[in-house]
Amino acid sequence: MTTVQWQRKDLVGIYELSAAEIELVLDTARAFKQVGQRAIKKVPTLRGKTLVNLFIEPSTRTRTSFELAAKRLSADVINIDTTASSLVKGETLKDTAKNLEALNADIIVIRHSAAGAAHFLASRLRASVINAGDGAHEHPTQALLDAFTIREKKGRIAGLNVLILGDILYSRVARSNIWLLTKLGARVTLSGPATLVPRQFESFGCRVTYDLDGALAEADVINLLRIQHERQRRSAFPSIGEYSTLFGLTKERFARTKPDALIMHPGPINRGVEIDSDLADCERSVILEQVTNGLAVRMAVLFLCAGGART
Amino acid sequence: MTTVQWQRKDLVGIYELSAAEIELVLDTARAFKQVGQRAIKKVPTLRGKTLVNLFIEPSTRTRTSFELAAKRLSADVINIDTTASSLVKGETLKDTAKNLEALNADIIVIRHSAAGAAHFLASRLRASVINAGDGAHEHPTQALLDAFTIREKKGRIAGLNVLILGDILYSRVARSNIWLLTKLGARVTLSGPATLVPRQFESFGCRVTYDLDGALAEADVINLLRIQHERQRRSAFPSIGEYSTLFGLTKERFARTKPDALIMHPGPINRGVEIDSDLADCERSVILEQVTNGLAVRMAVLFLCAGGART
Amino acid sequence: MTTVQWQRKDLVGIYELSAAEIELVLDTARAFKQVGQRAIKKVPTLRGKTLVNLFIEPSTRTRTSFELAAKRLSADVINIDTTASSLVKGETLKDTAKNLEALNADIIVIRHSAAGAAHFLASRLRASVINAGDGAHEHPTQALLDAFTIREKKGRIAGLNVLILGDILYSRVARSNIWLLTKLGARVTLSGPATLVPRQFESFGCRVTYDLDGALAEADVINLLRIQHERQRRSAFPSIGEYSTLFGLTKERFARTKPDALIMHPGPINRGVEIDSDLADCERSVILEQVTNGLAVRMAVLFLCAGGART
Repeated sequence: MTTVQWQRKDLVGIYELSAAEIELVLDTARAFKQVGQRAIKKVPTLRGKTLVNLFIEPSTRTRTSFELAAKRLSADVINIDTTASSLVKGETLKDTAKNLEALNADIIVIRHSAAGAAHFLASRLRASVINAGDGAHEHPTQALLDAFTIREKKGRIAGLNVLILGDILYSRVARSNIWLLTKLGARVTLSGPATLVPRQFESFGCRVTYDLDGALAEADVINLLRIQHERQRRSAFPSIGEYSTLFGLTKERFARTKPDALIMHPGPINRGVEIDSDLADCERSVILEQVTNGLAVRMAVLFLCAGGART
Repeated sequence: MTTVQWQRKDLVGIYELSAAEIELVLDTARAFKQVGQRAIKKVPTLRGKTLVNLFIEPSTRTRTSFELAAKRLSADVINIDTTASSLVKGETLKDTAKNLEALNADIIVIRHSAAGAAHFLASRLRASVINAGDGAHEHPTQALLDAFTIREKKGRIAGLNVLILGDILYSRVARSNIWLLTKLGARVTLSGPATLVPRQFESFGCRVTYDLDGALAEADVINLLRIQHERQRRSAFPSIGEYSTLFGLTKERFARTKPDALIMHPGPINRGVEIDSDLADCERSVILEQVTNGLAVRMAVLFLCAGGART
Repeated sequence: MTTVQWQRKDLVGIYELSAAEIELVLDTARAFKQVGQRAIKKVPTLRGKTLVNLFIEPSTRTRTSFELAAKRLSADVINIDTTASSLVKGETLKDTAKNLEALNADIIVIRHSAAGAAHFLASRLRASVINAGDGAHEHPTQALLDAFTIREKKGRIAGLNVLILGDILYSRVARSNIWLLTKLGARVTLSGPATLVPRQFESFGCRVTYDLDGALAEADVINLLRIQHERQRRSAFPSIGEYSTLFGLTKERFARTKPDALIMHPGPINRGVEIDSDLADCERSVILEQVTNGLAVRMAVLFLCAGGART
């Protein structure tokens, strides 16, 4: 157990966290993971507190995970999404958030298409602000749950070779993962189509390679990012078939990986694109465990930022 | 009280239930109906458990009933519908459901336009799967609440003449009702437009007749199915006016029914189409009691499948 | 504290309330406001009761406020909005509401585009019906929260000069405010574009003036109504720029107001239209406090109508 104290009311990004703070989140999540295995999966930690899921960009998956995490902590949850939201229409993001705070919201979980949205709110509100993905900037709870899963399976993060494969350029998941893993001492390698994996990412302390086979052979962890057509400029991106052939984790490529390399994916997976359908369900795939761990990590983050743990 | 034990984690359809199992659900529902009459309408049966309403085909009515049933049992409820659901987009149904299970969902209530969707999930998940309507296949909780209402009003089901009137061909409500009522010893008669009430349904153990007046005269229970334009091929179906004239329960037809025949309808009713507007509100109509009983029946189903009652 | 007893199961409008009843709501809200300042912001008052937010016209802001108010009182909340609502489709409003009552809903909060919708339901249901805005008719909880805010800031309502500025003709907020404030002894003045502020409103016991500067100079409270383009016939309304120039609260106009005049707005504000952006955030603006007070007022209304306080 780490002995660092959590002093933040917000979780905006991994970038600003210390290695000790990251480890504190992971240690706290380990305790909360056990709550999910009890018959009664609830603790009264956030009873009487209100969490608002403010999803300006829709995501059922992440919203559901935060909603369940909050309910397990006995918080009240209000979901606000863009559909039919007059709260949001004609109002600035700041006014929307100030109104939620005026309704005594204790925690605002925000997903927004603009990088910086979470930071913008965090610096203007008394409420805790949790970044659930802001543009191509950060998705800190995803990186934390990825790290939790690696640590649980491998016993450590320092010294591991982690390969992140796919659309790096537009990926907030990639950015948050790179920052977290390098802070904790992993060696991070990026690969994928050259248009989507620019050399400049090496300035973040990781390696960029276009030798996918070489990278796969030495990886202890292979994190396959989802191909998000909607986010990409057409010109930068090969066809789906071409992507699958050149960069997908096929059985052939899988045969050349280390026998204990973990297969990860933030989901939802495109079967047959980023990964062969059978491999997605194989023993070395921890994709569903990532989902389960996401719940524990989000409980930990909510508890640390809003549960009265701050000194 | 029946002495059969409930052994199922799922409720996929009526077809596979024994008469004793059906009676166990109805008996259990009777106890839960009383909870709805207390000042505090909550019991802690499913406290700490999570129910996900996964409605790939929207239905506020059924979703609300399951949501209330779950909340009365103190479960946490997550609603997922198709609108803006990135969980579902680009992901197979199985992956969506596996993800919900990975989030520790204990119960998945599924409505889907494809027959077999509930069975598909039930056989692949550890979570309890409750069928809230799958294509034209089954809608078991509707049939159970119909049976509950008949039994409560008539004291029995065996030996009664039950007339189901309307669109049988495309109706999951009809199928579930036919199976349930014949298992419990009722005599079931189907009537309606010949294109929508094919003779083949007699193989299910019921009678098909196009002599509506004769069928109305001997019915103890008249169940009017909703005309669902969106589901029907245009060619098979008469106009609304024609339907009302030929098959609607008009005052004239009503006058020729037994003086104690029950009028039922799964709702929402089209006033003036399946039924004369005044008759929908008359003393012999139990349409709103069906809604109330639906809550009790769904509490019973959730309790039996997921409440630790299984041995 | 007033000694009047609350006898109503519904809150349909301000029009039918006595001054004593209004004061009872405000006094009750004062007690509930303190709940929002506790660490655990919940009381068990409505435990086991079900509130349905039936929003036929969408409003995230008001829906969220009622939802939080109900959850603070420990009620279960079901949200139904028009999107994808098969409950509503092809069904009359009365049938929808009767069905909700059959599901044992104890309270129905209704927003509807038709004036009279809340009254229609209230007279037909055993459940409590709370009007969350019906067409251009009434929005009683908005007027109550406005009054609460004035009383808290000014110590009284009787004798104050309250200016309501903007689109009066189509505004339910204006109507409810006029009735409430005149009942409690305030002097109400209306101003704005002549097409939207007809002289006939003087029959409600208030004053209509087109001398905005004069009205601003003597106002103790300035309530700026939101410009709602979607509700207005094009011909009756100036352009946004013209409105802002002629009727917006600019810094220049603000300089001529009383030094302790309150600035109010029901929100969401259009910065730079009804009000200069800086002024919306100035010390004399109580716009966010109105939001906070709305929660307390709605808790009070739910408690009085459905909490067993009736004799």
